[in-house]
Amino acid sequence: MDVKLIPIKQIKEYDGNLVVAESIQEVPFQIKRVFCIFDVPPTVERGNHASKNSAFFYVCLRGAVKINVDDGKEKKNFDLNRSDVGLYLPPGIWMKIFDFSKDAVFLVLASETYSDNKYYEDYQTFIKEKANV
Amino acid sequence: MDVKLIPIKQIKEYDGNLVVAESIQEVPFQIKRVFCIFDVPPTVERGNHASKNSAFFYVCLRGAVKINVDDGKEKKNFDLNRSDVGLYLPPGIWMKIFDFSKDAVFLVLASETYSDNKYYEDYQTFIKEKANV
Repeated sequence: MDVKLIPIKQIKEYDGNLVVAESIQEVPFQIKRVFCIFDVPPTVERGNHASKNSAFFYVCLRGAVKINVDDGKEKKNFDLNRSDVGLYLPPGIWMKIFDFSKDAVFLVLASETYSDNKYYEDYQTFIKEKANV
Repeated sequence: MDVKLIPIKQIKEYDGNLVVAESIQEVPFQIKRVFCIFDVPPTVERGNHASKNSAFFYVCLRGAVKINVDDGKEKKNFDLNRSDVGLYLPPGIWMKIFDFSKDAVFLVLASETYSDNKYYEDYQTFIKEKANV
């Protein structure tokens, strides 16, 4: 599975912490969209879809979340609970994000704009299409 | 002065809050670098420089910060204390960020990579060069 954790620069100094990610360097694509998710109730599961064409780079800036990824053959869980590591997802990965801590601030960088992004919303369709690849 | 506040999409739902900014749309440039500043002591002032060539888009995702901008002719203060508005800075603006609230999570999107970004670090040089433009 091509989902992978990627270290990102963290500079901890007397005047605060800084985390940095650059297109093509830590983030293996041109960043077209940035979004941030927060104030998520602990019982909520987000995602439950796969993008057909967009790659993503996740960073949990504050708190912690869990992520389940599935490429149609294999499933994996990741704990994102530190701000100096990102999780890269290529296109075509079914994903769920859950167990948001109360203070979680979850940053997402995406390779496609919202209007260009195409989703699988149905898991059976996703599995069937992945099997035909 | 071309520094301006730009509204960004905020979707508040039962399953959490989402704020979104896209290159060229809300953010008037291609995003090449993303960084985030947090755990800043309240007495610290960050910045105190101007980029010669990079534009920036600031979003205060959590908490509050104050920003002073200066184009060499005029100075302005902005309070960034909500996650549904960004502050756009074109290149050539001297800036200071201060009064970070304890919980502030301050997101910066930049139009240049770190290595391509050129700074004025000295205020007098900045003022002199702006006067010659």
